[in-house]
Amino acid sequence: MTDYRPGLDGVIATESSISNINGKKGILSYRGYSIEELAQKSTFEETAYLLLTGELPTKSQLSSFTKKINSKRDLPPKLFSLLENLPKNSNPMDVLQLGVSSLGSFYPIKFDPEELKSNLYKEDYFLDISASLIGSIGSIIAAWNRIKQNKNYIKPKDNLGYAENFMHMLDDSIKTTPLINRIMDATLILHAEHTINASTFTAMVAASTLANPTQVLASAIGSLSGPLHGGANQKVILMLEEIKSKDNVESWLNERFSKKQVVWGMGHREYSTKDPRANILTGMAKELFEEQSGKVSTMFETAIALEKACEEKLSKKGVYANVDFYSGILYKEIGIPVDLFTAIFAISRTSGWLAHWIEQVGNNKIFRPTQNYTGSNDRDYDDISNR
Amino acid sequence: MTDYRPGLDGVIATESSISNINGKKGILSYRGYSIEELAQKSTFEETAYLLLTGELPTKSQLSSFTKKINSKRDLPPKLFSLLENLPKNSNPMDVLQLGVSSLGSFYPIKFDPEELKSNLYKEDYFLDISASLIGSIGSIIAAWNRIKQNKNYIKPKDNLGYAENFMHMLDDSIKTTPLINRIMDATLILHAEHTINASTFTAMVAASTLANPTQVLASAIGSLSGPLHGGANQKVILMLEEIKSKDNVESWLNERFSKKQVVWGMGHREYSTKDPRANILTGMAKELFEEQSGKVSTMFETAIALEKACEEKLSKKGVYANVDFYSGILYKEIGIPVDLFTAIFAISRTSGWLAHWIEQVGNNKIFRPTQNYTGSNDRDYDDISNR
Repeated sequence: MTDYRPGLDGVIATESSISNINGKKGILSYRGYSIEELAQKSTFEETAYLLLTGELPTKSQLSSFTKKINSKRDLPPKLFSLLENLPKNSNPMDVLQLGVSSLGSFYPIKFDPEELKSNLYKEDYFLDISASLIGSIGSIIAAWNRIKQNKNYIKPKDNLGYAENFMHMLDDSIKTTPLINRIMDATLILHAEHTINASTFTAMVAASTLANPTQVLASAIGSLSGPLHGGANQKVILMLEEIKSKDNVESWLNERFSKKQVVWGMGHREYSTKDPRANILTGMAKELFEEQSGKVSTMFETAIALEKACEEKLSKKGVYANVDFYSGILYKEIGIPVDLFTAIFAISRTSGWLAHWIEQVGNNKIFRPTQNYTGSNDRDYDDISNR
Repeated sequence: MTDYRPGLDGVIATESSISNINGKKGILSYRGYSIEELAQKSTFEETAYLLLTGELPTKSQLSSFTKKINSKRDLPPKLFSLLENLPKNSNPMDVLQLGVSSLGSFYPIKFDPEELKSNLYKEDYFLDISASLIGSIGSIIAAWNRIKQNKNYIKPKDNLGYAENFMHMLDDSIKTTPLINRIMDATLILHAEHTINASTFTAMVAASTLANPTQVLASAIGSLSGPLHGGANQKVILMLEEIKSKDNVESWLNERFSKKQVVWGMGHREYSTKDPRANILTGMAKELFEEQSGKVSTMFETAIALEKACEEKLSKKGVYANVDFYSGILYKEIGIPVDLFTAIFAISRTSGWLAHWIEQVGNNKIFRPTQNYTGSNDRDYDDISNR
C-alpha cells in the first residue's frame, strides 16, 4: 500500500521506451531522437514508424508502411453514409470517436489473446494494423469537414504525403504551399507522442484489457476531448480573438491575473523552460506570415505581444508559451476550422497511442489500482414506503 | 517517486465512497448497502439512483428519476439509421461504443468546466444527464439486436421497468415471466459497480480531463470490451458447450489444468471466498430451471458438476465460481444471444461509471502518472539514404 497521490502525480505507471522528457533542459525525444531534429528532417509517416517500431525505417520499410497507410485513406462509402446521419453541429471529437469505433466493424481486426503470445514478435502484425488506422483517421476528420459544409467527399491522391493529402481531402479550396505542407507535417510530428499524458494513459488502461485497437483508440480520443487535455489550442484562438489587438494585451493580462484565470497556451507542467515544440513552431509561424502577406497578421502581432508580456511576468515561475500556443495560430492562419484543431491533434497522437498499445500488450498486466474507501458501512435497506 | 508496480497493483488511485469490497469475508456493498439485500429488494433504477447520489430515493425522487430514464428509451430515428449502416457481423461492443458516442451529437450536453464549479452541487444536473444516458444505452443494444436480424425497431413501453422493457425491445419473441424479469433486474444490479476495475478506472481518467460524459462512457466501454475484463461470461458458455455433458467434466478439467489454462468464470482476484454475486445467482438459476422445465438442463448440470469439481480442486487456493459463471448460463437459458452478454454488462455498469464520473469531477485532478524511461538516448538522425 502506498500513499494516495491525486491524479497519480509522480506515480510510475509503466516502463516505457517510447519517448522521454527532460523538463529542466526543455528536451523531448522520441525513441532517443530529439523532437527538433525530427520536426526539421522527418515526415509524419517516418516518425510514426519510428514510434511504433523503435527504429527509423529503411527506404523499403518506409515505402511499404506508407503504401499500407495510403491503402486506407479512401473511406468505405458506408462509413461516409453513417457520418451523414449525425447532426451537422456535432462536436468533431464525438464524430471522430464514433468514426474510429466504426473502423472495428468496417475492417474487423483479429486480435485473439490466445494467439497473442505467438504473434507477439511478428512486428508486421502490429505495424499493418497501425498503418491502417493511421490511414483512416485523417480521412474521417476530412470527410466530416465535407459533410458539415454539405460538400462532396474528396478522394485521396496516392502521390501525396500524409499531411498534404489530409489538406487536400479536408478542403480543396485551401491553397497550400510547400511551406504550409511542411508546417502541417511538422505539427503532426510534434504532437505525435508525449509520455504518459491522460489520453495515452487511457489507451494503456484500455489496451491492458486486450481490447481491440479501435476500442483502445476510441477510448483515448474520449480523454483527449476533455478541455483540460486536448482543447487548449482552440482556446488560444478564442482568447486572441477576445484580446483583438496587441494594444490590449497589457490590460487584458492584468485583468486575467487579478481574476486568477488561466492564460491559454502558456505553461506546461512537464517543462520549466520553453516547451521545445513551441520553439520549433515559432520559427515556422514567422516564415508563414512572411510568405503569406509579407507582414505579420493582427492575430500574430497580438500573440507575439502576449507571449512577450507573459514571459516578463511568468518566466520567473518557469511559465512560457507551449506547443498549443503556436499550433493554434498556425492552423488558424492556414484556414483550418477552429473546431477541428483537437481532432487534428488526435490524428497525430494516434501514432503515439498505438506505440503504447503495442508496448502494453507486449508485456501486459491489466490495470487495477485500488482505492481509499471513504463511504458508509453496514447500512440496512429500508422499504421505500418508509423513506 | 514510488516503486513501479505493474498494473498499479495495490496503488491507491482515488478516494471513493461508491462501493466497497471485503474480499476475505466475501462482501460487496454499494454506498454501504450489501449487494445481497439490493439484489433481493431493490430494482436497477433504484440502485442506479443510490450509486449516483449516495442515498436510496424517496418515492417521488424515484418516480422523477425513472421518468427521465424512460423519456430516453425511445431512440432518435437517425440513430437507428446510423446503426443500419454498420455491417451485420459487427462486434456489439463496437456498436455500443459507437452508439454511445453518437448520443453526444443527438443529445448535446452542456458541460462547461468554467461553469462546473457553480453547478457542482446541483445534484439534479448530474442526475438528469445520468438518467438520459442510462435510458438510451439499453435501447441501443436492443436496436442493434433488431438490425442484425433484419427486424423492425420495437418501441419502448412506458409502463415497464428497465429490465422488462429491455427484454421487450430486444426481442418480443422471448417469453418472459416475472422470474425472468427479476433475474434480469438482479443481474443489472449485481454488475452495476465493482470499485476500481479497468473500465471504471478508464472512465475516471477520461473524466479527469473534463471530457463530456458520453466520451467518458464510450472510453469505459472500450476497456470493458477487452477479453481480460468484460468477456468472461461469454467464454463460460463457449466452455460449457465444449464440455458438452457432466460426464466429461473430470477429464476436461484435468486436461485444462495440465495445460495450465484458465477455467472461465472461476476465481476473482478480489475475493478469497465465493464471489457474493455468484451466491445470489446460484439460487436464481435453480429457480429458473425449475420454472422452465421442471428439471435442470444439460448445460446447467454441466455447470454444477464443473463448479463442484473446481471447488474440490481449487477452493484450497481460494478459487470459487464468480458472477460471470452464473450470469452466463442464466442469460443463455433466457434466450439472449451470447454475443450481447458483455454489452448487457455495459448497460448495468453505466450506472457505476457515471457515479465515478460525478465523484471524479467533484474533486478533480487530471490523471498524469509518470514512467520509468527504459529507451535510447541521444541518437542522431541519419538521412534515409544512409540507412
